[in-house]
Amino acid sequence: MRWFLVAALLTLLTSSQGILTTLSQSHGKYKYDYATVPFLAEVFKLLVSAILLWKECQASSPPRMTTEWKTVRLFPIPSIIYLVHNNVQFATLTFVDPSTYQIMGNLKIVTTGVLFRFFLRRKLTTLQWLAIVLLTVGTTTSQVKGCGEASCDSLFSAPIQGYMLGLLSACLSALAGVYTEYLMKKNNDSLYWQNVQLYTFGAIFNMARLMVDDFRVGFENGPWWRRLLNGYTVTTWMVVLNLGSSGLLVSWLMKYADNIVKVYSTSMAMLLTMVLSIFLFSFKPTMQLFLGIIICMISLHMYFAPPHTLVDLPGATTNAPSNTLKEITVDQREDS
Amino acid sequence: MRWFLVAALLTLLTSSQGILTTLSQSHGKYKYDYATVPFLAEVFKLLVSAILLWKECQASSPPRMTTEWKTVRLFPIPSIIYLVHNNVQFATLTFVDPSTYQIMGNLKIVTTGVLFRFFLRRKLTTLQWLAIVLLTVGTTTSQVKGCGEASCDSLFSAPIQGYMLGLLSACLSALAGVYTEYLMKKNNDSLYWQNVQLYTFGAIFNMARLMVDDFRVGFENGPWWRRLLNGYTVTTWMVVLNLGSSGLLVSWLMKYADNIVKVYSTSMAMLLTMVLSIFLFSFKPTMQLFLGIIICMISLHMYFAPPHTLVDLPGATTNAPSNTLKEITVDQREDS
Repeated sequence: MRWFLVAALLTLLTSSQGILTTLSQSHGKYKYDYATVPFLAEVFKLLVSAILLWKECQASSPPRMTTEWKTVRLFPIPSIIYLVHNNVQFATLTFVDPSTYQIMGNLKIVTTGVLFRFFLRRKLTTLQWLAIVLLTVGTTTSQVKGCGEASCDSLFSAPIQGYMLGLLSACLSALAGVYTEYLMKKNNDSLYWQNVQLYTFGAIFNMARLMVDDFRVGFENGPWWRRLLNGYTVTTWMVVLNLGSSGLLVSWLMKYADNIVKVYSTSMAMLLTMVLSIFLFSFKPTMQLFLGIIICMISLHMYFAPPHTLVDLPGATTNAPSNTLKEITVDQREDS
Repeated sequence: MRWFLVAALLTLLTSSQGILTTLSQSHGKYKYDYATVPFLAEVFKLLVSAILLWKECQASSPPRMTTEWKTVRLFPIPSIIYLVHNNVQFATLTFVDPSTYQIMGNLKIVTTGVLFRFFLRRKLTTLQWLAIVLLTVGTTTSQVKGCGEASCDSLFSAPIQGYMLGLLSACLSALAGVYTEYLMKKNNDSLYWQNVQLYTFGAIFNMARLMVDDFRVGFENGPWWRRLLNGYTVTTWMVVLNLGSSGLLVSWLMKYADNIVKVYSTSMAMLLTMVLSIFLFSFKPTMQLFLGIIICMISLHMYFAPPHTLVDLPGATTNAPSNTLKEITVDQREDS
């Protein structure tokens, strides 16, 4: 059950991420360059993993580390998928409004299930498939625009390209997760060694992105390294550390649990953020949030509960074999 | 699977009921006294059951009929419960708005499950309990007021008495159903004989209600028998026949299936009515209706699918015994 604790911690961190990010704004605007946050988070993850790997190397039994190019060359792939994903995301948002985009984002739960089944060849029971669809429906329900909310007419009025790009985005997001799980479970290498490879490429790709942004605006805000810590507050640093820590937990889950656990974790975090926002930012609680939470809880139970606890009759007085068992027990008691 | 066909037919009839009732209005108003419809439906059910009972009596083996007072005296009880329920319903509506009332009406799914378990002592698996909660959530989701719809601020702003009465109403509605099932399954009496008793009291109580209404308004619209067929059109008669026929199907289900089947049947009918209204009355389809339908379909599958089809791994290559079986099959083929 260690994975359960890690997943719960990931839920807490992911849910604080949204809240910390909102708190790090002043008057609804970022005083710092938000694009620098993921780069610093990658650097943080790389440092932590490097230190832990170094400590592992000091131990009596050194960690398993595959250093041949055939394996190392696979580690930039998740970063590349995320890079493509970011651009598809950006393109999608030119066709659809943010509400539709948010609703479509839930599709990644189903696409993760599908890739998990076909790419990683992991079997799921019918009940688990139903649970995955239900999780998608549950998170979507919680996001349904209620009475009196703005921008509702625009929902699902986008051109077909928007939906195709949204679907592609959901597939890429799922692919990145599933590919990472494949990498982490491919061999018995030390988790920290795998992390060091993953985050080295992650840091490089994030740095490249900052540089491309600089070129795109013709260095009008100066080079990225000058902007790096500009306007950073304690809250901004907490955003960085929080993002980095949740990344490390995701890596752990990819190696010792799986993508479905991660998907449940982040979906629950989304709901938790909405509940916390009611108290912190006085969001109006809606009927659909309440319904969404119940649906996701049922889905969680359906997916993870041991099957026999779900389909066995409790007490089972209508169940003949169980009845016979009871009679035997009574007989034995009378004998002794 | 005969009960499945009866349940499907009940869904169609219940769903047409709402549509026929709307079609029977002219310019959004009833030209006839709607209170006369349930009375005539009871009379129709009584006639049909009496004819079928008479035919059964002509057959070589006459039907089983218990005529002792000890049993007969139980048959007015469902009518009495419905009478109390109608008044509680009326009282509830003085405290809560119709939207909240509609949402709270879904509670009867859960109360039916609870009374089914404790009054009829029928066991349900954990999965079936989850399915029942999910059906409640699904029907509620489909009814969530969307963007741009009127009267949303009033939702759940009623005084506490409103909710208590709404809960009482859900309990009474469930009790009437569960009590009828108890009556129908109490002995092996002919269904038609049980129906004749049930509908005789039903007709009497409905007539009494019409008379009480007459006294209440001081006979200003004349006595009820004069109003009985006033303003009736072909559509009004269809409403009567439809209501009567669905009542007969409910009786059949109470004897040969159960309350949960009935609850699924009428919940699906509610969703079907909403879908048909999109085409017939150009209702705007909503995201929440779409989500509600998926939730209810999943719930239906969870409740009625054979448990082994839900929790067994398909193909099961990760499942050792099944693998062994495959190898054996291959070996046998090579032998032959």
